[in-house]
Order: sequence, then structure tokens, then C-alpha cells
Amino acid sequence: MESVKKRVTEFSLEAHDLYLNQSVPYLEGSPDPLQFYRDWIGPNKPCIIRNALSHWPALSRWTPEYLRQKVGSKVVSVAVTPDGLADAVQGDRFLMPEERRMSMSALLDVLQGEQQGSVFYLQKQCSNLLNELPELTDDVEPHVCWMSAALGKLPDAVNFWLGEARAVTSMHKDHYENLYCVVSGEKNFLLLPPTSRPFIPYGAYQPAVYRQKDDGAFEVLDQTGSQKVPWIPLDPLDPDLVRFPEYRHARPLRCSVKAGEMLYLPSLWFHHVRQSHGCIAVNFWYDMEYDIKYNYFQLLEALSEVTGSS
Amino acid sequence: MESVKKRVTEFSLEAHDLYLNQSVPYLEGSPDPLQFYRDWIGPNKPCIIRNALSHWPALSRWTPEYLRQKVGSKVVSVAVTPDGLADAVQGDRFLMPEERRMSMSALLDVLQGEQQGSVFYLQKQCSNLLNELPELTDDVEPHVCWMSAALGKLPDAVNFWLGEARAVTSMHKDHYENLYCVVSGEKNFLLLPPTSRPFIPYGAYQPAVYRQKDDGAFEVLDQTGSQKVPWIPLDPLDPDLVRFPEYRHARPLRCSVKAGEMLYLPSLWFHHVRQSHGCIAVNFWYDMEYDIKYNYFQLLEALSEVTGSS
Repeated sequence: MESVKKRVTEFSLEAHDLYLNQSVPYLEGSPDPLQFYRDWIGPNKPCIIRNALSHWPALSRWTPEYLRQKVGSKVVSVAVTPDGLADAVQGDRFLMPEERRMSMSALLDVLQGEQQGSVFYLQKQCSNLLNELPELTDDVEPHVCWMSAALGKLPDAVNFWLGEARAVTSMHKDHYENLYCVVSGEKNFLLLPPTSRPFIPYGAYQPAVYRQKDDGAFEVLDQTGSQKVPWIPLDPLDPDLVRFPEYRHARPLRCSVKAGEMLYLPSLWFHHVRQSHGCIAVNFWYDMEYDIKYNYFQLLEALSEVTGSS
Repeated sequence: MESVKKRVTEFSLEAHDLYLNQSVPYLEGSPDPLQFYRDWIGPNKPCIIRNALSHWPALSRWTPEYLRQKVGSKVVSVAVTPDGLADAVQGDRFLMPEERRMSMSALLDVLQGEQQGSVFYLQKQCSNLLNELPELTDDVEPHVCWMSAALGKLPDAVNFWLGEARAVTSMHKDHYENLYCVVSGEKNFLLLPPTSRPFIPYGAYQPAVYRQKDDGAFEVLDQTGSQKVPWIPLDPLDPDLVRFPEYRHARPLRCSVKAGEMLYLPSLWFHHVRQSHGCIAVNFWYDMEYDIKYNYFQLLEALSEVTGSS
């Protein structure tokens, strides 16, 4: 079994020499669909694309004032937590935010006020741009032409993100090809490739949700009867290498995506996200293909469990 | 270790449900480069393309008479064996053919004569079409436009194949994206995906070459001083399941590629090849990418060795 673990570790380290970049490269301008497929989607490698959003009116329009005027009365779902950690492991629980329905104006009041107490993050990933804020769609695009051409399909979801600096997205992966477009402010990503799976710890946690009481304090409500949630207990910004010694092998990429830039975040890449205060972003989720790479990833996942890497 | 072996077996079986086809699909006509990349090259899946060679003069021109007239005096490298098995495991050796330099006319005399004794196969994979038979290039194409566009590069080699029904290519894999074009006759392929690697036995064999003596008999000359060659000792047409019990899990695809058809044989697919008598073919080898799929394949190879699957 030790020899298997050794091979799996070697494989994961080899990935960096074989096909990964040392940092996230930049493309200048919207790429050709075939070239983008061949260079980035197929090889499952992230990149940042500059000057691909220049024609979006949102880049100049989306100020708090504009949003109040255009969609101020619209009701959106906002994640509310005491500490900015929504969907994250805390102790022995997988803690989810309170999902609060509130008007965009009320959310902007919070974000433009003094940042104390609860943390608010508009992060609902249900194609909320198209469903909850259709008035904003014309300021961006309903899909990214060259990406849709590359993948031969339209996005599955287009999400609108608005939040504060304290809101953090814990490390996880998605089953989507993701184009993450920053409209204002900046997002800070920490990325690990799927081939790093053996170094990333997973646990199974009792799901629970926050609820803010009338006095402002938060209580934690266990979702009894719900199945345990597999999640990553490690904080990649301050990894506990005593508890998770395998993570010492991990070689995360860090990048900052600024207003007007777009991150291609490939399917199954682990990512941890922070942001500047009031950062606004739109992301496009395209269904991933369940192909030979996914087949291999499932093997890696099974091996990570069997060898006790996770 | 048994649990690892079990997971590896499950992974390999899962591949068939997840992304592989039950047979090799047909495309009707030259595909769009992007679509071909997305549907076949990226997912590493074989297909047969019909009507993509219709414009090749070779399809109507390449008769024995034409070849004698056009390149009859050209000297080519021909693999000569007593039994049609060139580059194959026999006993405890990896046996390579005698490489005989002869004129195309002399080869055609053999192929058009009575098939007795030695087996001749023009199968030199050194871009022999362009290097040894440039007079024939205009009858085909120096590259396949849509494939070169898809991959963003030209082929590394263009090979000309001419042989008899007794000549067999033993199971192996290549580090190339392969377009195999049958000009006359037919080729019969038995294919296994890279994800079947755990079921495919490998051994290390002393390399040796055949040499035909003046009396017509063949002797075997060990290449002493040469490193042992890793090769597959199994005959997929008559697998010895007592020696290689893991192979019972393998689910090979079989296909027949007829004149005017083109097989896309993806990189690292295991293949065993037979042919009709006098079959003429041209294949294009494009360098494969050493990307995440290759990284995963190397893990699979290491695991197959460690778990004793091979």
C-alpha cells in the first residue's frame, strides 16, 4: 500500500513538470474557439483573459447608484453569516449560511454602511443573473460567444456575485467549466489542479445552517436527517500541516483577477476565493464533459480514499 | 493492495459506461476541426471517417501496375519474417523482422506471386511515403487539412503500408494521434482504450532479429547488449486467459476499415492489426500532447505494475 501511495504522490508532483504552469498565464483578448479548446479546455489548464469584456456596458455602468436605480427593488437571495464563512467546515459541521431574501437596495445599504456584525454575500448560484436580475443582462452578455462556440453549447447558469471583503469561499471544486468575469474590484483565487487530489483532505460533516436571531446573534441549526456532506476541512491560507501532512506536497497557484479580466477556471480544479470590498462579478458555468479525464479523476479520488491520503 | 486492485478494475470497467462507445462510430465526410477536436481528439475516442479521401487520386490510381510504373525502381525497406509476425513476442524474445532493402517491383513480384514461405510487409514508419516514395505524394496529400487545423500542427510522419494477409501487427500503443487511411483492400483493427491498461499484460523481452539465410531458412540473432524491450505477450485474437486472467475484463472494439475510409486511432490506444492481401494504406502520425491525460495514464501504468495486473 505504501508503494501505491508513493506512486500516487509521484504522479501528482509529476503533473507540475509535465503540463502545469507555474503561474496562471494571461491571454490578451478573446481567443479563437478552437485554439482555446486545444490549449486550455482540453488540457484542463486555467488562464486569465484580458480585454475580453471591454464591450460590456457593465464595466462602466455597474456602480451602486446604477444598481439601486435599475434593480434596487428586486428581491435577491443573500448568504448571511456571522464571519463570512458560508459553506465551510467549522468544527464537526458543514455550516451553510442563512439564505435571506432582501431587496438589492437593502443589500447595498449594508455593503455601503459600516462593516460590522453579519457578513452579506450575494452568491446564489442558480443562474441568478438571468432569473433574479434580468434587467442587468443587457449590460453583459447571456453567454460568452467564443466559449459557447468552443464547447458547442450554451452556459448552464449565469451568476451574479456581489459581496464584501470578509466573505470567503472555502476550498471546493465544481463540475463545470467556469468563466469568472470581474466587473469591479478584484477576486483573489487560490487554485489547485484535480491531480492534486491526493494531497487534499476530505471529511464527512453534519450539515447545519446559520440563523440570525432577533437579537442579532447567530444560532446553528443542525439539518437532522440530512446525509453528511463531504467537504475539505483545510484552510489553504493557513494549512494545518500537523493534521494534514500530505498537503505539504501541494503547490497552489494564486492569482488576482481584476476588473475587466476573466478567469477560465477549468472543471474539477479546487479553488478558494476572496475578494475586495463590494466586488461585482458575473460567472458562466458550462456543463463539463464526463469523459476520460473524469474517469481518471474518479480513480484518483478512489485511490486517495483507499491510501488514506484523505 | 487488493482494494487498490479492485478500484483500478472498477475504474477501467466504468470507462465503458462513462465515455466509450460499444463500437467504433462512423462520420460521413470530413469533419469541422473544432468539432473533431471536441468530440474525438479531446475525449480520446476512435471513429471511422467516410468520404474524406474521395478527392485522393490514389483511390483509383494505386494498382500494382501503376506502382510498378511510377515507383517500381525505387528502393524501399521491407520487413521480412517467416510467419508474418514482425515486432512481436515469441517465447522469451521480442522478435523483429529482417529489414530488407528491395525495389518496389521486387516487392510487388512477391505479393503478386504465390504466397509461400517468407512474409513481406512494407511497414517502415519513418515517414517513408515522403522520404522513400515522394513520387506518390501528389496522389494523396502531405497532411490532412482538418486534422492539422484541429491540432494546430503538421504531421510528424506520413507512412505508406503495403503487405499481405499473413502480416500481422501485434498489440501495442503509439505516442501519436493517428489517421489511418485505407487506399485499397481493408484493415482489421482490434482496439482497446488506454484505460484498459490494467488488463493488458506486459513483459520485458530480449530483443532479437530474424535473418533469412541463403537456403531460405530464418535464423534468430539476439541483439546482445541491447536493453530488454517491454512488450505485450498476449494475442488478443486468442487470449490465453490462464496466463493472463485479468484480460477477461477487457472489452476490445473491433472494426474493419475499408478502401476510402479513415480510422482516427487516438494516442495510447492499444491496437492489433490485420489486413486483406495487398492492402495499401497511408497513415498520418501527429505528435500527441503530454498533458493531463498522459499524466493520468502514467499513474495507471505505475499502478498496473505495482498491483501486479501486468
